[in-house]
Amino acid sequence: MADSKRLTITKVTPAYWSVLIDNPPINLYDPEMFAEINMLLDDLESDEDVKVVVLESANPEFWVAHYDFARADVMPDMPGAAPFTEWPHMVSRFSQARVLSVAKLRGRLRGQGSELALACDIRFASKEKAVLAQPEVGVGVVPGGGGTEWLSALVGRSRTLEIVCGGEDFDADTAERYGWVNRSIPDVDLDEFVDRFARRVASFLKQPLELAKKLVNLQAIYPSEAQLWNGNHAFLGTSAWPASQARLERLVELGFMQHGDMELNMGARLGLEADFEDLPSD
Amino acid sequence: MADSKRLTITKVTPAYWSVLIDNPPINLYDPEMFAEINMLLDDLESDEDVKVVVLESANPEFWVAHYDFARADVMPDMPGAAPFTEWPHMVSRFSQARVLSVAKLRGRLRGQGSELALACDIRFASKEKAVLAQPEVGVGVVPGGGGTEWLSALVGRSRTLEIVCGGEDFDADTAERYGWVNRSIPDVDLDEFVDRFARRVASFLKQPLELAKKLVNLQAIYPSEAQLWNGNHAFLGTSAWPASQARLERLVELGFMQHGDMELNMGARLGLEADFEDLPSD
Amino acid sequence: MADSKRLTITKVTPAYWSVLIDNPPINLYDPEMFAEINMLLDDLESDEDVKVVVLESANPEFWVAHYDFARADVMPDMPGAAPFTEWPHMVSRFSQARVLSVAKLRGRLRGQGSELALACDIRFASKEKAVLAQPEVGVGVVPGGGGTEWLSALVGRSRTLEIVCGGEDFDADTAERYGWVNRSIPDVDLDEFVDRFARRVASFLKQPLELAKKLVNLQAIYPSEAQLWNGNHAFLGTSAWPASQARLERLVELGFMQHGDMELNMGARLGLEADFEDLPSD
Repeated sequence: MADSKRLTITKVTPAYWSVLIDNPPINLYDPEMFAEINMLLDDLESDEDVKVVVLESANPEFWVAHYDFARADVMPDMPGAAPFTEWPHMVSRFSQARVLSVAKLRGRLRGQGSELALACDIRFASKEKAVLAQPEVGVGVVPGGGGTEWLSALVGRSRTLEIVCGGEDFDADTAERYGWVNRSIPDVDLDEFVDRFARRVASFLKQPLELAKKLVNLQAIYPSEAQLWNGNHAFLGTSAWPASQARLERLVELGFMQHGDMELNMGARLGLEADFEDLPSD
Repeated sequence: MADSKRLTITKVTPAYWSVLIDNPPINLYDPEMFAEINMLLDDLESDEDVKVVVLESANPEFWVAHYDFARADVMPDMPGAAPFTEWPHMVSRFSQARVLSVAKLRGRLRGQGSELALACDIRFASKEKAVLAQPEVGVGVVPGGGGTEWLSALVGRSRTLEIVCGGEDFDADTAERYGWVNRSIPDVDLDEFVDRFARRVASFLKQPLELAKKLVNLQAIYPSEAQLWNGNHAFLGTSAWPASQARLERLVELGFMQHGDMELNMGARLGLEADFEDLPSD
Repeated sequence: MADSKRLTITKVTPAYWSVLIDNPPINLYDPEMFAEINMLLDDLESDEDVKVVVLESANPEFWVAHYDFARADVMPDMPGAAPFTEWPHMVSRFSQARVLSVAKLRGRLRGQGSELALACDIRFASKEKAVLAQPEVGVGVVPGGGGTEWLSALVGRSRTLEIVCGGEDFDADTAERYGWVNRSIPDVDLDEFVDRFARRVASFLKQPLELAKKLVNLQAIYPSEAQLWNGNHAFLGTSAWPASQARLERLVELGFMQHGDMELNMGARLGLEADFEDLPSD
């Protein structure tokens, strides 16, 4: 059996769980993290007491950096392991869960990192320290984990196109203005704000909480598993294009998926034409 | 015949009506207010001249506090009286009316108070004095008057879940940022702003105004009467749960539905776990 | 053949085109401009290299003032000429185009000017110099070019009703808060911001850009050509109403469609009841 510990689950109280995400050095989303999230969802769905779960990162620089392109086809020998194409099912479990999920955002969350946060019911972001992006188009592919789908529902068509076609880094204030996150909160207040929110929700009765979420699910616009499946397969298609592969390989040479300037400043780095101009353009 | 005077209707001009809501001490929404709103809608629908109606409160502390749980089953002997389950029909009359309805918000509007404002076409709120909440989950029930439905359409899924599952008080600036109200306006300017807006609308031709509202109704996302009916009946179901009844009874002991700290500071009070921890949890 | 030059197309690079709109004195949208935009779309659709197009105005006071009511029935003898009712088809070509369209907004854009900007995928507006309005109801008609349809999708029902039934001028900050524009940007930074965004997009691969836009189109809410057709014909109906015609004639007497105070300050001028009170009210 594989031995991994990407997630540390703490029951702050029986009704309020906290999940610490840790996959050094940059918190890549990889097959082991996927497996552990699937197991977390099993636990959340079968527990009788839990009402709210908070996901946060152990890494102050990265909430979840993005997808680990190098290990996409790995299927670890561990409980919860699933092929990449099970992602739409997994995130739909979050939206349908009887538990309220809250992403507490510090550091960078790009691509599938942003999409994991979007899969959570609520997002509170550090005003100074959260950085959000859907950089896929700049990488040569398209968002495959729900970026276009969730953002279309939350921020409207024009801002989704700006985010997705520009691939730029966004700070928390802009993300709040657009509706990408619920709120941008001064970093010094973020922990207390989220803890207070979670304790408050946990103190309410479970039945009305669950029914309220179901009523919102009935009415709100958000992507279905089938719609997410479509985006996921569109991504898989783009990643086979030769020009996309060449661009991704160049990015890896430049530090993509490693700790360093490329991952720290990806928004700016994707816009440096000189780094890519010798590559095939289609 | 019952004698009540919850609403005072003033024809500022034939095209611009003002409605003053007054039900001391905290402007509870009760069966008499319901009956009078139904009669107001009859008048608005049959009048040839009216183009815009402004709803405001006579009580600086409360716009409309919330539903009067103690008098839910009362059917007053007065014109317009209707069972509680007619609410979805009533609010749909606002959205379909040939008249533009504007809620001028000062003081607290929680639960059905917020939902009456949401049923109006436009909401302008006092920056310093408006307080909005959907506290139902904290009370032990779920929103029954359109809170989940209207908010899902206006502020998106994630912020609706924060509002509804957190049950917290919101100020006007946050409500504006979320889209719960059209605008947050400094209190000193609010009256003039709304009066100017209403006079302006009243000076335009009635036919284009009506057609423009119909075109928006054709395209915009907002809850149908059937969708509101569903939320209304979900609420009625929750209010029968024993744990919910116990919580509501405790709240009444603590001042719910009376003038005092509980109604003034309900957001904070619902989060005081010590007040509820001896109650059944499901 | 008619000789007009409303649009000047510059290929900043093969992948990044700039379109300068110029129709002195106030940049009215007229049949010649329509014909040239149709030809622009032909060029954009057939070009192999273009990825992004920026539309801006040569006139610092007006981006596109609005529809030229005086020349609605003119069919110029020039390529691209089309009847007014082809507008819904034209704007749908923008939303479906494989190219990303960006409106850089300085000066006034009201009515069909706002609607041409709404037809573009993305809108960046000068904080100090952009003025947006859908003044049609104040003119006596209804928006016919997608105003109700696009705004319903972008800013929600309540704010659409405020914009459309109030007919007021909006500054860029308020338009940003509502979602009418993507961003309000200090005027001194606007050119560089938009140029940087366009160059960035142009440096990305064309295939992922196109697919990303298609994925957003699949999921986002925005008006179909059929829905825009309906609004267009509603407008044509209102413009035949006698009271509407009388109001429009009065507006022309007061300077509508000419350079001067009416066009510069239309928001305020439409609210001056004394100018219209002797006219028929229906």
